[in-house]
Amino acid sequence: MPSTRRAETPSLIAAIDLGSNSFHMVLAKADHGEIRILERLGDKVQLAAGLDDERMLSEEAMQRGLDCLRRFAQMTNSLPEGAVRVVGTNALREARNRADFIRRAEAILGHPVEVISGREEARLIYLGVSHSIADTPGKRLVADIGGGSTEFIIGQRFESQLRESLQMGCVSYTQRYFRDGKITPARYAQAYTAARLELMGIEYSLRRLGWQQAVGASGTIRAVGLAIQAAGMGSGEVNPEGLAWLKRKLFKLGEVEKLDLDGIKPDRRAIFPAGLAILEAIFDALELKHMTHSEGALREGVLYDLLGRHHHEDVRERTLSALMERCHADTEQAARVEAKALEALEQVADDWQLDDEWHRDLLVWGARVHEIGMDIAHYQYHKHGAYLIEHSDLPGFSRQDQQMLALLVRGHRRNIPKDKFAEFGDEGVKLIRLCVLLRFAILFHHIRTSHETPAVQLKVGPQSLAVQFPDDWLAANPLTQADFEQEAEWLKRIDFSLQVS
Amino acid sequence: MPSTRRAETPSLIAAIDLGSNSFHMVLAKADHGEIRILERLGDKVQLAAGLDDERMLSEEAMQRGLDCLRRFAQMTNSLPEGAVRVVGTNALREARNRADFIRRAEAILGHPVEVISGREEARLIYLGVSHSIADTPGKRLVADIGGGSTEFIIGQRFESQLRESLQMGCVSYTQRYFRDGKITPARYAQAYTAARLELMGIEYSLRRLGWQQAVGASGTIRAVGLAIQAAGMGSGEVNPEGLAWLKRKLFKLGEVEKLDLDGIKPDRRAIFPAGLAILEAIFDALELKHMTHSEGALREGVLYDLLGRHHHEDVRERTLSALMERCHADTEQAARVEAKALEALEQVADDWQLDDEWHRDLLVWGARVHEIGMDIAHYQYHKHGAYLIEHSDLPGFSRQDQQMLALLVRGHRRNIPKDKFAEFGDEGVKLIRLCVLLRFAILFHHIRTSHETPAVQLKVGPQSLAVQFPDDWLAANPLTQADFEQEAEWLKRIDFSLQVS
Repeated sequence: MPSTRRAETPSLIAAIDLGSNSFHMVLAKADHGEIRILERLGDKVQLAAGLDDERMLSEEAMQRGLDCLRRFAQMTNSLPEGAVRVVGTNALREARNRADFIRRAEAILGHPVEVISGREEARLIYLGVSHSIADTPGKRLVADIGGGSTEFIIGQRFESQLRESLQMGCVSYTQRYFRDGKITPARYAQAYTAARLELMGIEYSLRRLGWQQAVGASGTIRAVGLAIQAAGMGSGEVNPEGLAWLKRKLFKLGEVEKLDLDGIKPDRRAIFPAGLAILEAIFDALELKHMTHSEGALREGVLYDLLGRHHHEDVRERTLSALMERCHADTEQAARVEAKALEALEQVADDWQLDDEWHRDLLVWGARVHEIGMDIAHYQYHKHGAYLIEHSDLPGFSRQDQQMLALLVRGHRRNIPKDKFAEFGDEGVKLIRLCVLLRFAILFHHIRTSHETPAVQLKVGPQSLAVQFPDDWLAANPLTQADFEQEAEWLKRIDFSLQVS
Repeated sequence: MPSTRRAETPSLIAAIDLGSNSFHMVLAKADHGEIRILERLGDKVQLAAGLDDERMLSEEAMQRGLDCLRRFAQMTNSLPEGAVRVVGTNALREARNRADFIRRAEAILGHPVEVISGREEARLIYLGVSHSIADTPGKRLVADIGGGSTEFIIGQRFESQLRESLQMGCVSYTQRYFRDGKITPARYAQAYTAARLELMGIEYSLRRLGWQQAVGASGTIRAVGLAIQAAGMGSGEVNPEGLAWLKRKLFKLGEVEKLDLDGIKPDRRAIFPAGLAILEAIFDALELKHMTHSEGALREGVLYDLLGRHHHEDVRERTLSALMERCHADTEQAARVEAKALEALEQVADDWQLDDEWHRDLLVWGARVHEIGMDIAHYQYHKHGAYLIEHSDLPGFSRQDQQMLALLVRGHRRNIPKDKFAEFGDEGVKLIRLCVLLRFAILFHHIRTSHETPAVQLKVGPQSLAVQFPDDWLAANPLTQADFEQEAEWLKRIDFSLQVS
């Protein structure tokens, strides 16, 4: 199910975060570009704990998640399309059987579920944090220790500059180093060292940018700050002395069962030692002295991002412009193809059920980036373009968005890979139609110069496109005619008929 | 078999071109950076005609090729390694069973056979042409109509600026449009239109650069020029009037058997109509008025390229620098890893049989480009880097070179794909060793700053590497120690032992 987005802002919007440790929902009222939170719900689903060595999510863990979503659904059921955004993070990125879970979750929620990349998660976390804390001018480091991954962002005001995501989290590290609940210095050292090794890959680039202020998001950092405060060592922030004290305390207690520290809720006890080890590693690697806590994070970021899309500050537009620039795309050619594709879409949108914002966006994006693969090589450039779109970090896009856009680019010339479209089910049928429209537009611009294109009449059926040219135009343009004949051959292979008159 | 290259120029060098239409050999004497051709051999093997619909090369066609190579071998057998370069072009790019042919060809020749990309072919053609014609200052368009592909280059003096390769050639078009030898206006128009459609994709970018002089290489263009000259319409160059006259003449004759025009050798008759249609399409698409012919082309380019490598003007160095820049690679980190990798290679080159220029080059290149995949995304960046290296147009590199370098990058972190190395046979064992050395060097530079690295002693066995650190160094650097322990785990998976003391 693709994410459908409307142009007007609905007054009630909601974000659901399917985290590796907990699922959360926030319901908010959108009000002149600002957001007022009306309701928060959360549930310690511990999805990441249900991943086995083969990266399969157990049925039990899925059920825990689905039960939680049934509760959330009571609140989101009545909201219109585009008013709810549901994002899955590391546990779902990892799970090989995520499609199964997503299908069942979408059936319950009635809204699409998107799995987002680690860097996209980082971007959204920063957006949420920056809207939740004082708007100071300097650079900020934001860290968010999740259940399966930990995100690091350096940004200024509402804009993130560097986004990183590491494969370490308090749930996965608990399973690896503290599975039976015993806390020993040796185990703690193992967890700490593993985190330091992960951090090695990014600490230099973070430090090179630098920051004036360090902010932590996530329950782990909040809990550590509160425990330190309860011990009389600060007012809720994390500092090296507090971390050292807490670590000694943990070693003395020896097992998680005994962790009844102030500030640590019972259901957080089990994952506390792993979280602490990761946080200490972060402090040491980045030589931090002080970290405050932000209540807002991923969920709030998702809400602000949703709001931005409705207010035409769509970060996806900027993302694609940056991608085109990075890949030295011919922007004039892209604009010509885009214009012709939209002209065609207008004629067929109703009949082909492409009359919503999402499909229009997808066609526009496809036109813009269809040639980026040429930056790698001309030979098979449609495949290179699809690779770039599928694997690049594209802020604002979910993984499924990227896969669909990649497929559109993959199919824009030569053979159309029918099987790959079929993987998207009913949506695949619409994707093929978008692909046909994109190819149609390109046919008019094979000669890459600015020139008038003929106004054509389009008639469509479920598997057919009939193009009527102005009288005598085709006869006067035999190359385009030959091009259309060749195109008809390609489309015939996917049982699609193209008639030209 | 990888191409081994020596630093000193051998006095006798040879180039063999396994073309889609003919195989050719040139033997030359290298003399102070210039080349004197001593011998030319050629044979109309028509390899492309032996490709079936499944892109399998028939045994018959292979035999024709191998018979020809046996004759060439008498002359190249005695030449040392690195003095002979053998390149395969479009028919071998296309053939799915090319590995079989290459293995047999290498056994006969005793020299490695490289399959080069269309753009690499274009680069070499330009190099050959520019050394064969007068060294004029303006821009040149060079076109070379081959059996399976046609190359276009715009360049100035000895440097190509734009390189393109289209999938159209006089052998493949003959099979498609003139298989039974009949020449009709309708068939000719089909071939001409197909060529115009192919040209559409590149004519704009060629024209945008522009040129002062058009030069044709290849037998087709030579034959057309000679036929026009024989009719009294010029002195060997091709012009639109001559093309029109020749076309009318062909239609009048009606079949290739009757083509006994002056300048057209009997064995060129069959492919002449297709070649003429392609050439006319080029003239029309690019609005050419005049095209002279150059005797030198691909083979001469291969010789000059070989000479450049021996004179430290290796185009491959420039290619990789450009790739690093395009991908925003961290050049300082690359240099640090390169230095450490070479330091290690010095200690083990003899024992691991990596004591030649080729393996040293490969390790250096691997160090330089191992991080370029980060330009796409951090997640799985080693795979993205491998994709970029395998699929980019990298002037100076053969396909096999690119595959080996890509594999080195693919294996530089996390899991080492043993099966992929095994595909290279004995050479794969050496590639794994290079990969181990590259990984070893990176371990010292995980923290991406300039710092002193300890001088270590290396001892190797067929499947083992023992590293001796200075006393107490490891104890003082527990993170590196943990890093080496993790590395030992990765290497264990490929039955490779890493011991640290």
